[in-house]
Amino acid sequence: MRGRFITFEGVEGVGKSTQIAHAAQYLLGRGILPLVTREPGGTPLAEKLRALVLEPQHGPVGPTEELLIMFAARASHVAAVIRPALRRGRWVLCDRFTDATEAYQGGGRGVNPVWIRQLARIAHPRLMPDLTFIFDAPAAVASARVSGRGTGHDRIEAEETEFFERVRRAYLAIAAREPGRVRVVDATQPEVAVADVVAQALEAALRNRGD
Amino acid sequence: MRGRFITFEGVEGVGKSTQIAHAAQYLLGRGILPLVTREPGGTPLAEKLRALVLEPQHGPVGPTEELLIMFAARASHVAAVIRPALRRGRWVLCDRFTDATEAYQGGGRGVNPVWIRQLARIAHPRLMPDLTFIFDAPAAVASARVSGRGTGHDRIEAEETEFFERVRRAYLAIAAREPGRVRVVDATQPEVAVADVVAQALEAALRNRGD
Repeated sequence: MRGRFITFEGVEGVGKSTQIAHAAQYLLGRGILPLVTREPGGTPLAEKLRALVLEPQHGPVGPTEELLIMFAARASHVAAVIRPALRRGRWVLCDRFTDATEAYQGGGRGVNPVWIRQLARIAHPRLMPDLTFIFDAPAAVASARVSGRGTGHDRIEAEETEFFERVRRAYLAIAAREPGRVRVVDATQPEVAVADVVAQALEAALRNRGD
Repeated sequence: MRGRFITFEGVEGVGKSTQIAHAAQYLLGRGILPLVTREPGGTPLAEKLRALVLEPQHGPVGPTEELLIMFAARASHVAAVIRPALRRGRWVLCDRFTDATEAYQGGGRGVNPVWIRQLARIAHPRLMPDLTFIFDAPAAVASARVSGRGTGHDRIEAEETEFFERVRRAYLAIAAREPGRVRVVDATQPEVAVADVVAQALEAALRNRGD
């Protein structure tokens, strides 16, 4: 029996990490020890690739190079961590995946979304999440949670809010396109209410385990 | 006036490097100082990416990761070296480019050629060589030149010959598909005869410079 590949998406500040912890706890209570992972995925190659993008001594990294390197790291993560776990029947909970690239690089930075979908088919052919949670909140709410000091009003904060609104809209467009896979969860609800919505979706996935 | 982007392709042993030197010399004689380059292209990022693929301490690198990393390095080479030179009107002579990926990874190793063409459009949109020389020789002739000891007969050498024949067929398929860009040059001819064929094609490119 193949495991389930479940991804958690959303902008910073929507409570993603907390909800992954709740989801893992819920599955544990149902006798399932999930593998919790996140990109770049802990393979030596992926870590090195991440360092190349982040470390300034390698000189500026253009958006196309960043995109290709990101998918190379993802291909390594999928081949070395995600696929082997799924093959062994493990459930995999992953903090962000290709939807994040479509939302951030595509929606946020204007990278051609067709490129992103082509790269996804190259980097992880025939592998998409079985279930994806998009934790959704207005960008101003999420950024207020990150900064912990209310909604910003200066020019840079306004630009940042506009960027995160574009990311949010791109996430919602993915959900509209793939309603069978993607659940949008209202992240402005209290933490326990959000965790309940996630738990119900996990329960449904557990019941369909034999399909 | 934009420079010309000219690539030199073919399997090891066909005399590519020698012919690039002859071509550069020919252009110099016509008052053009070409930029001679080769992948990974000398950008710090591309060198680091190349090291990641080649250095064994990073663990095995799968074919998909290798393909994506190769195109990330190429994107860097194009953005930092090739495009700026062409914009300044320089002629660029490049030892191998995307055709090599199609021949080696596609023809040789069976990577989906559609992926390679999609990656080319992502890594270097709207940039293909103006002129490409494919130096062609039977694989056995080329490998005999490399080894300097005649055609091999054992199992591994036979496998290698079969691999290089697949690479060669992929190169010839590119030439058949794009006869306007690609010149196949019979590399079994004497060095000076090959250089003459190249010089004639360069002369034609020089005459069309104003177009």
